[in-house]
Amino acid sequence: MDIKKVKRSEDYSAWYNNLVKNADLAEHSDVKGCMVIKPYGYAIWEKMQAELDRRFKETGHQNAYFPLFIPKSFFTKEASHVEGFAKECAVVTHYRLKVDEITKEIVVDPEAKLEEELIVRPTSETIIWNTYRSWIQSYRDLPVLLNQWANVVRWEMRTRLFLRTTEFLWQEGHTAHATADEAIAETKQMLDVYADFAENILAVPVIKGVKSENERFAGAIETYCIEGLMQDGKALQMGTSHFLGQNFAKAFDVKYVTKENSREYVWATSWGVSTRLMGALIMSHSDDEGLILPPRLAPIQVVIIPIFRKPEEKIAVMEKAEAYTALLKKQGISVKLDDRDYQSPGFKFAEYELKGVPVRIAIGPRDVQNETVEVARRDTKEKQVMSAADLEHKIPHLLEQIQTNIYQRALDFRSENMYAADTWDEFMDILENKAGFISAHWDGTAETELKIKDLSKATIRCIPLNNHKEAGKCILTGKPSTQRVLFARAY
Amino acid sequence: MDIKKVKRSEDYSAWYNNLVKNADLAEHSDVKGCMVIKPYGYAIWEKMQAELDRRFKETGHQNAYFPLFIPKSFFTKEASHVEGFAKECAVVTHYRLKVDEITKEIVVDPEAKLEEELIVRPTSETIIWNTYRSWIQSYRDLPVLLNQWANVVRWEMRTRLFLRTTEFLWQEGHTAHATADEAIAETKQMLDVYADFAENILAVPVIKGVKSENERFAGAIETYCIEGLMQDGKALQMGTSHFLGQNFAKAFDVKYVTKENSREYVWATSWGVSTRLMGALIMSHSDDEGLILPPRLAPIQVVIIPIFRKPEEKIAVMEKAEAYTALLKKQGISVKLDDRDYQSPGFKFAEYELKGVPVRIAIGPRDVQNETVEVARRDTKEKQVMSAADLEHKIPHLLEQIQTNIYQRALDFRSENMYAADTWDEFMDILENKAGFISAHWDGTAETELKIKDLSKATIRCIPLNNHKEAGKCILTGKPSTQRVLFARAY
Repeated sequence: MDIKKVKRSEDYSAWYNNLVKNADLAEHSDVKGCMVIKPYGYAIWEKMQAELDRRFKETGHQNAYFPLFIPKSFFTKEASHVEGFAKECAVVTHYRLKVDEITKEIVVDPEAKLEEELIVRPTSETIIWNTYRSWIQSYRDLPVLLNQWANVVRWEMRTRLFLRTTEFLWQEGHTAHATADEAIAETKQMLDVYADFAENILAVPVIKGVKSENERFAGAIETYCIEGLMQDGKALQMGTSHFLGQNFAKAFDVKYVTKENSREYVWATSWGVSTRLMGALIMSHSDDEGLILPPRLAPIQVVIIPIFRKPEEKIAVMEKAEAYTALLKKQGISVKLDDRDYQSPGFKFAEYELKGVPVRIAIGPRDVQNETVEVARRDTKEKQVMSAADLEHKIPHLLEQIQTNIYQRALDFRSENMYAADTWDEFMDILENKAGFISAHWDGTAETELKIKDLSKATIRCIPLNNHKEAGKCILTGKPSTQRVLFARAY
Repeated sequence: MDIKKVKRSEDYSAWYNNLVKNADLAEHSDVKGCMVIKPYGYAIWEKMQAELDRRFKETGHQNAYFPLFIPKSFFTKEASHVEGFAKECAVVTHYRLKVDEITKEIVVDPEAKLEEELIVRPTSETIIWNTYRSWIQSYRDLPVLLNQWANVVRWEMRTRLFLRTTEFLWQEGHTAHATADEAIAETKQMLDVYADFAENILAVPVIKGVKSENERFAGAIETYCIEGLMQDGKALQMGTSHFLGQNFAKAFDVKYVTKENSREYVWATSWGVSTRLMGALIMSHSDDEGLILPPRLAPIQVVIIPIFRKPEEKIAVMEKAEAYTALLKKQGISVKLDDRDYQSPGFKFAEYELKGVPVRIAIGPRDVQNETVEVARRDTKEKQVMSAADLEHKIPHLLEQIQTNIYQRALDFRSENMYAADTWDEFMDILENKAGFISAHWDGTAETELKIKDLSKATIRCIPLNNHKEAGKCILTGKPSTQRVLFARAY
């Protein structure tokens, strides 16, 4: 399967699948719905983790680790949570295998049946709030500001690499507070952390908002989200931050003694982003030649490719290539010198384009003579001849330019695909013929939202924060509305 | 429960459990056999991870991620592996829950039974080698040098925090090579990485060796290990590195085309360390007052405790405390200024002793006058008055001294508890009355080793690398032996 065989304009979905596979990011495993994250894909995820983890710690959070398994009964304690999560999940029923005496095959030992089934965590609110009960006694124990990096499992029938898989990797923050105000401030703070990360590291512009009731997290009072727009005009929810009120504290009886010596239920938040961000990254910047990585996440920021024919050329070219590699590494740049002698420069050029390496430096015999190199940027494909003496200060600057440029490009794309619709016909016309975000009036009811979804496959992605209030009529029912909300078809 | 209520000399096991709980490292969860790693414990684990991960990358390895679930049939493909691992494990049999129509309770949906059960990974050789089949075609694809940070599950009936839990965290390296020599070199290299990490970071001296056949990893040709000696004279296996030969390549049909164009099976290694290292850390250095952390792993390296009575004292003391905190942070030291006003200095002293903070700095009104501080080391409990002007250069040096001292102390302890036994009576006498490592002759058979284990509860911890050859007689059977091996009772 060759990446070039499918263009984005022909079949976006097939193009995506090909790219994820060909750029060595991930692949389907032989375990239904579960992916293998390949080293190159995982290296990008590790860089995301490092950037997020640093931001979590700077805002006062610590990491901890809670069990993979959750007793089935825990899910029944929070009424709406059970609706949302105790459905499609992996259920552990036994704890032993044995060799069948007759068939000699390995079978589940019926004598090793668990008294209570264990669920592989789809999210950890229940097990964590069950733990917080013994950790939180007094106002002095608050706030509890924890995060967990973990794998979670939600059984999925139709999967797509990174976007929807049965097992995925994520982080889940779970905080406990003395007051509602403090918990709401935390919820918003973490939304800002996610938005900052998305825009400055992923180079993906996002819209911050709150979810409608239909799209709210099961167990939340309010769900905040960041939404990105992919190249095919579909939206992608990139992160959520939930104000959980006292729902989980009540479900798991977590109370604290206030300064005034009364006993109150604790206030909660939870927030998470996942390997889904890899999908956002891919579908925001890539082109028909392959991935385009923002320099701040690129495992290889600069690749150096030596070009030569004769052995004496090789010596001179390699000497320079090695010197420039060392020079750039000293600047803290991640550089790869590709000295494989069994691949042609042309093959290598295509390979690093596919893998989205931001800057390519080629050095041939003439460059050695002239003390120059050829520098190509992945984002614009522009090439320039650069004096070797300039490498040291120009390459770091170029990497920053690329970071800024791909963000700006994604921002321009989103601006161009941001529509307003005032009638149902306009709404459907945009969805069918243009795609993108549509700002439209809605009567505020869950029923209407569901009807709109049934008719158009579009959902309310969010009610943007600080939304402009404006009287209008619902595009479907014509009933009065106080504000426009943001619709889109979404992943 | 107060840590001081149990001394090491009275009940080592109860002392350990108390310490893990009271120092906020970990606790049992409500899920049988699974632990919660608390923030302070997890911060130490994160520091271990960072040190290990850096060493893995420096030796050319990359991280990747493979599925949590392994189809049952995969375990049957490697004959000895199935014996070792397809026994006590978590078995996923269903993928959906539903509300029972009559009882209204949440039950497993019998219609959602998996065709083939999935095992929660106890180790990942099978799923990884099943993946390598499509990744490895030619000698140019070799070596494959991967590592995975993951959670694994081995159902345990009797658990101890960090030492033996149903779920634990670990890293597992899985490499593929063109030749046996290369794979053996990799196996030994990773053993050296583990030993370097154990001695220089954990400050725990280890003995490198190979396991006897009985103790070998299920599926390995040779298992290398590092063994530490805990304060109660019991050994702890701290890490293993396995040469797997072609066993998994044959089981999963992984062949490569050589330079000479023949097709050969690939050679394998795997190697791992786990959260068990937390147990090694605790049982190597702590005392009756609590944890003693090596500075290179301490989440807080220096704690500063202000001491004052009157408000005007507070202002002067806090000003200095803040200045010294900033000064030491600038040196790259992790410093905590404990300014809680509702706890006494005495309470704080005990708390940081319990938590093993290497250096405590106390500042009172007189110190402000004299431009001094009181510096206490956790390892020796020595206190000294230090001129404030000396902090900047003396504290980093003191941290290095503590790191060296606790390693030396552990090394001395091990030397003092290293015995030789030439008869069965000597052997049993040492085990019953002294404990520690015992160097003794063994006839080399698995039967004798098992008999010794039955009679003494001691096992062969390893045959040390570069072991001295020496003719002798087996302590149990009197049969001829060519070398002494290392016995101990072990965790």
